[in-house]
Amino acid sequence: MKKHKPKRTRAHPFAYEGLDRVMHERARLSVLTSLLGQRDGLTFGALKQLCGLTDGNLSRHLEVLESAKLVEITKGLDHNRPLTVCRISSMGRRRFLNYLTVLEQVLLDAESATKGSAGELRTAEGA
Amino acid sequence: MKKHKPKRTRAHPFAYEGLDRVMHERARLSVLTSLLGQRDGLTFGALKQLCGLTDGNLSRHLEVLESAKLVEITKGLDHNRPLTVCRISSMGRRRFLNYLTVLEQVLLDAESATKGSAGELRTAEGA
Repeated sequence: MKKHKPKRTRAHPFAYEGLDRVMHERARLSVLTSLLGQRDGLTFGALKQLCGLTDGNLSRHLEVLESAKLVEITKGLDHNRPLTVCRISSMGRRRFLNYLTVLEQVLLDAESATKGSAGELRTAEGA
Repeated sequence: MKKHKPKRTRAHPFAYEGLDRVMHERARLSVLTSLLGQRDGLTFGALKQLCGLTDGNLSRHLEVLESAKLVEITKGLDHNRPLTVCRISSMGRRRFLNYLTVLEQVLLDAESATKGSAGELRTAEGA
């Protein structure tokens, strides 16, 4: 990934204003990351499984994402059984990719903060 | 940064269980990233400025971080004026570095999801 810098306020270099709460919440971050590579979308069941969420939790978070127009949800039938399919919207895709550049900046800042500490970030897992 | 994989549940590959809510919340993520490179800590005023937070907000988030033993706060005097200094604790440092490896995994997953889309992540800012 190219190390480019998203816009940031010089006065508040660690404010990370682009970490929009709608996308930053852990379950919604899971859902958006799951959907990012799926042009045809994912079924409710597949999303639930990938994100390790309960029916109720996933429904609640999908409502938030749909209200923000970040995902589109279609309800149809598959062999006469209800089938819900979720897709990331064009705007959702664009906004999520921008969000990810801010997340990348957090990692770059953390990396530069630990510079000289012999690649601490790389070995954190073994700590 | 080395692209190593943090532990993840195979059954729920996008669950990102390591994104601990205490550290993931945006303001607290700002505070911890600010403190990471400061062995001697930062004053309350400096943190407020770096993170773009109000007095009340910063106090509230520091309380959460202190309760979780991720930061240590010392109150002293500087020329007879009260001076609050905040430091990341050893445990806080270790846990935050582990948290960052999960954040890195989100970026790797997103990058692999957009593979074949001509480096979409790289150009998102221009979108």
